[in-house]
Amino acid sequence: MYAITIPEPGGPEALVWDEVPDPVPGEGEVLVEVTAGAVNRADLLQRQGFYDPPPGVSPYPGLECSGRITAIGTGVSGWSVGDEVCALLSGGGYAQKVTVPAGQLLPVPRGVDLRHAAALPEVVCTVWSNVFMIAHLRPGETLLVHGGSSGIGTMAIQLAKAVGARVAVTAGTREKLDHCARLGADILVNYREQDFVEEVRKATDGAGADVILDNMGAKYLDRNVRTLAVNGRLAIIGMQGGVKGELNIGALLAKRAAISATSLRGRPLEEKATIVAAVREHVWPLLDAGHVRPVVDREIPMPDAAAAHRVVEDSGHVGKVLLIAP
Amino acid sequence: MYAITIPEPGGPEALVWDEVPDPVPGEGEVLVEVTAGAVNRADLLQRQGFYDPPPGVSPYPGLECSGRITAIGTGVSGWSVGDEVCALLSGGGYAQKVTVPAGQLLPVPRGVDLRHAAALPEVVCTVWSNVFMIAHLRPGETLLVHGGSSGIGTMAIQLAKAVGARVAVTAGTREKLDHCARLGADILVNYREQDFVEEVRKATDGAGADVILDNMGAKYLDRNVRTLAVNGRLAIIGMQGGVKGELNIGALLAKRAAISATSLRGRPLEEKATIVAAVREHVWPLLDAGHVRPVVDREIPMPDAAAAHRVVEDSGHVGKVLLIAP
Repeated sequence: MYAITIPEPGGPEALVWDEVPDPVPGEGEVLVEVTAGAVNRADLLQRQGFYDPPPGVSPYPGLECSGRITAIGTGVSGWSVGDEVCALLSGGGYAQKVTVPAGQLLPVPRGVDLRHAAALPEVVCTVWSNVFMIAHLRPGETLLVHGGSSGIGTMAIQLAKAVGARVAVTAGTREKLDHCARLGADILVNYREQDFVEEVRKATDGAGADVILDNMGAKYLDRNVRTLAVNGRLAIIGMQGGVKGELNIGALLAKRAAISATSLRGRPLEEKATIVAAVREHVWPLLDAGHVRPVVDREIPMPDAAAAHRVVEDSGHVGKVLLIAP
Repeated sequence: MYAITIPEPGGPEALVWDEVPDPVPGEGEVLVEVTAGAVNRADLLQRQGFYDPPPGVSPYPGLECSGRITAIGTGVSGWSVGDEVCALLSGGGYAQKVTVPAGQLLPVPRGVDLRHAAALPEVVCTVWSNVFMIAHLRPGETLLVHGGSSGIGTMAIQLAKAVGARVAVTAGTREKLDHCARLGADILVNYREQDFVEEVRKATDGAGADVILDNMGAKYLDRNVRTLAVNGRLAIIGMQGGVKGELNIGALLAKRAAISATSLRGRPLEEKATIVAAVREHVWPLLDAGHVRPVVDREIPMPDAAAAHRVVEDSGHVGKVLLIAP
């Protein structure tokens, strides 16, 4: 098969479409012929050499895909050759074939194109595990989503609205905020022109955000704590604004607030399977009913993954950038 | 009645035993004739003028007491005049009488002296709400308790052992560590001579602590994060080591860990009542059965509260310092 390899870490040009050995499904795994993969920011870090795959994981980038099952390893039940699926991966999605632990497979939702299903696993699992399983967003509460127009952001808006929460978003352009509004976002903050602490406070009668989904890390840490409501929960899933920041414990304590920080990729198989099962139970019905949909910015042929990385690096997209396997 | 008043904030001598008006129970409250109060570190801050009582709360210090119900306000059921009780207070425990919201009353456990029952409400509610309701300590997990010989610490050791967890403690003297060991602590760290990060790591085969109960805040923030296990939870309940500290979000994220910070006093009535009800359901049977007991360092006449504050300020105690009402 062919896959995107990274002979030397570097810029987008480091991504090389090359012939590699076919993967073979082990116990509890299936082999998927990939229809589409999708780009995540973690892939950019991996390309730069800052985020090596965990031991035992495919060396090729790609944390999610869609496609058809073409072979089934021992000890797998509930799935058949020919099934159209999408899957959460620990790596290897930028390829024509990938092996997937059965616990990370999801059916393609009704009415969703097989290619577009590749946009779902990583964002749905990330949002559900952080905003709902860890931070327990409840109906009537306010969720602040940083980067509201990103893949994660567009899914967070839809899921929070689907459960009856109010949603505030930050984004860097009017167009991106308009897109967030069309997905249901109630409070729109242009972070280039406005102070999100102040805007969220005003829009919530001084109460603040009950849950914040943050991809900025250190740069926003203090402002996020200031934006939290009493009993608020800050869920950090990225560190695009740095790794170390000053935490005002006094402010956190006065609000009886909490901070969590997670990544999906490093979780052991059983934790991923637990999240995938929860997502299938709670989110898949919303997708099947058309209440929530994948947001796809564009589709790029997989061999030209470098172009896709450039789009994501420039934040020129809304939703997910897909890689279509030849 | 008489109560400890604070005419001017300051050192222990600022505490003045003086005649004040009797409190009158409002709707949903009872009046308790106080047998004993207990000293908490928050009382020292209040005495120094750093921790004013919330609006509507007694101006006298004292966050817990034991005694007998002598009057019952409207809208209270389940309690009778003459009942021996202990209570979580928002203030006013350093007095001969105090009004208590009914949701903050607890019966005196079987076999526990009425005076000693004053040592229970604040520590049991703090430990249960943080270590179990927020951080969800589970059997087989490891809890690290800073200040293991404090009132909070001695209760945390006992409750964690009662549910089948392993307990590590820090304390500053051999005698205090010995006391922790007698209560069941498994891993003893003298913080004056040893590095708790290293000691906990060694004692857990490198895994670290699943839950940390911390009273130091900023000073221990980085070391606590380093000590956490994967999926670890740091519960901060005090800031004796400062308010602002550098948080390594990268380390937190790599461990998929979480930090919470809370205080009991600022919680609204319904949250306190929820905690008290949970404590009555889960901890009171352990007290009734004698598996967990109040740890009392000494009893001091309430008018001499200054002497009690000096003991706590010097950390010369193990467990709780009680104030016996005349």
